[in-house]
Amino acid sequence: MTELKSRIAREIGTPALVVDMDVVERNIARTQALCDAAGVANRPHIKTHKSVELMRMQLAAGAKGITCQKLGEAEVMADGGADDIFISYNLLGEEKMSRLAALMGRVTMRVAADNPTVVEHLSRAAAQAGRDLLVRVECDTGRKRAGVETAAEAIALAKLIVATPGLTFDGLMLYPPEDAAAVTNKFVEEVRAALAEAGIGIPSISTGGTPNLLNLGQIAGATEHRAGTSIFNDRMMMAAGYAQEAECALQVYTTVVSRGAPERGILDAGSKTLTTETGWGLKGHGLILEHPEAEVARFSEEHGILDLARCNDRPKVGDVVRVIPNHICPVVNVVGTLVFVRGGEILGTSDVEARGKLT
Amino acid sequence: MTELKSRIAREIGTPALVVDMDVVERNIARTQALCDAAGVANRPHIKTHKSVELMRMQLAAGAKGITCQKLGEAEVMADGGADDIFISYNLLGEEKMSRLAALMGRVTMRVAADNPTVVEHLSRAAAQAGRDLLVRVECDTGRKRAGVETAAEAIALAKLIVATPGLTFDGLMLYPPEDAAAVTNKFVEEVRAALAEAGIGIPSISTGGTPNLLNLGQIAGATEHRAGTSIFNDRMMMAAGYAQEAECALQVYTTVVSRGAPERGILDAGSKTLTTETGWGLKGHGLILEHPEAEVARFSEEHGILDLARCNDRPKVGDVVRVIPNHICPVVNVVGTLVFVRGGEILGTSDVEARGKLT
Repeated sequence: MTELKSRIAREIGTPALVVDMDVVERNIARTQALCDAAGVANRPHIKTHKSVELMRMQLAAGAKGITCQKLGEAEVMADGGADDIFISYNLLGEEKMSRLAALMGRVTMRVAADNPTVVEHLSRAAAQAGRDLLVRVECDTGRKRAGVETAAEAIALAKLIVATPGLTFDGLMLYPPEDAAAVTNKFVEEVRAALAEAGIGIPSISTGGTPNLLNLGQIAGATEHRAGTSIFNDRMMMAAGYAQEAECALQVYTTVVSRGAPERGILDAGSKTLTTETGWGLKGHGLILEHPEAEVARFSEEHGILDLARCNDRPKVGDVVRVIPNHICPVVNVVGTLVFVRGGEILGTSDVEARGKLT
Repeated sequence: MTELKSRIAREIGTPALVVDMDVVERNIARTQALCDAAGVANRPHIKTHKSVELMRMQLAAGAKGITCQKLGEAEVMADGGADDIFISYNLLGEEKMSRLAALMGRVTMRVAADNPTVVEHLSRAAAQAGRDLLVRVECDTGRKRAGVETAAEAIALAKLIVATPGLTFDGLMLYPPEDAAAVTNKFVEEVRAALAEAGIGIPSISTGGTPNLLNLGQIAGATEHRAGTSIFNDRMMMAAGYAQEAECALQVYTTVVSRGAPERGILDAGSKTLTTETGWGLKGHGLILEHPEAEVARFSEEHGILDLARCNDRPKVGDVVRVIPNHICPVVNVVGTLVFVRGGEILGTSDVEARGKLT
């Protein structure tokens, strides 16, 4: 490990996003196995890695298609070989409908909608493409983000999609909170009954989230699952009980560049590298593997400011340490390059082709 | 404004980072005028905009050089015409010293150091370049980031730099807290007296920070100032009392894509666009110009989740709104493209050439 750290620092420079491909392969296999065991299709969310090479590994391992959050991600992944793409997001506006129509001419496109305005826009994309678009109703069963909040709205929206020329109702998109199986099942059952009465079947029920990989089987009738973070894992997934430290495939290698005070150290990775997200009750902004008792207490843009008060073995200037970030997705998004390693060897670097795609 | 918003949505797509060039020009002129009035050189920090075109505007307006935080930024800006670059950061390691040496062969390079290890590494870069390197001692007078914390350490480090072959002592780098003029003056005076006794002059005293543009003149002997955010300004600079709303040159144009509940809306700009930084006592994650009473309450990666409880005039799905981010620097860093506008017209797009430079 000391040798690999030295080589990364010498040949790549720090901070560097270092991906252990053995761990990535195990993580991909685990996600696939969890989906297989539950009898649901695996449709990984590429928003975590944004890399064509990693997407291809997911497809090769058995994924039935992919999930994207932005058209720009879908365009990159279609170029890279994806042929069944679900954009789990409300798309609207002329510029996006043109791009969606272009994608529809190349690959199977599925999109989400949670309101009639979006449905109306999507029908224009279908008209422009000259073919039908698969549309799923996004339902919110407790996360309080996007999605219709009541079964009545979901039913009305599904009927609207069925009635809209160019659109094909493709089922329900769910992103249930980890403890909301009962509420979600009640919601889905109410929608199913009402739509059945109208002669409308539900082709797919898509669930999402890495922690929910442990809850597969709880949502009756689920047909597929969208997990993003599980390819890398991170400190939040450790806190959520999904992953162990050894399952965190992406570590940020960073150098201690200053020891301003006995109880303070500075990493060359700040908010522009590790990003400022917290959640799952985490304290601090990352786990330092060599000094787990050191806290990444605060950030400047290029400074990670360490509180070493509880740290007996304190790092010195020039030390390279490995950090598991709190949330890996925004970290990858800001960085252009991943460094792939295996068995302590550097395999090479790989572009994050869809990083920073705004639209 | 409605027309421009429609055009941005139609021709560029949202979210988009829209820069009003009239405001940018006024902001650049104001920063230069504040430095001129105080008799200090203006050395803007390009970490905010990371754009060659904007850097050139700063130089044309009178900046004496630029400040960078990373070698990768300096390389891009040297390619773009900068010829006097200060990297206000501890650099160390073989990979960085090679790149620093290469830059020394092209432009005047100045760097910071706050410890002997960094000084030793810098001497290797100088040897590799075959010419002297200008080194400033980074001093911490209260910010608790990098920098030596005592005058005694600063004195010792300055003497070490003077004694190190290949290095030229270039003065002090300060980044004083906004209320720390007295403490900082005492620190600097102690260093000055001791170095004078040893026959060592202080060629430059560099101060930093946009809010400190209002404090120029308070640090005795200051010769230059490094401000970054003042080219764009943001919600933090409004909270800091430096900027008014009309002085915020970069606004994120974003579309309301969902109204999940009466008191909730969803923007198509989340943490991967607006970033999750707070500070200066701010509540929420941005100021929505059309709905200032709406709160950007929380984020998913691509969702900005609005709390509309205190909002009488609530936005509807499809509305395009303009957001002043809390902190503009990480927003620009994650995005590849700026949209330049003037007088309601779209001038074109411009690359953020140094975005996401990790090293």
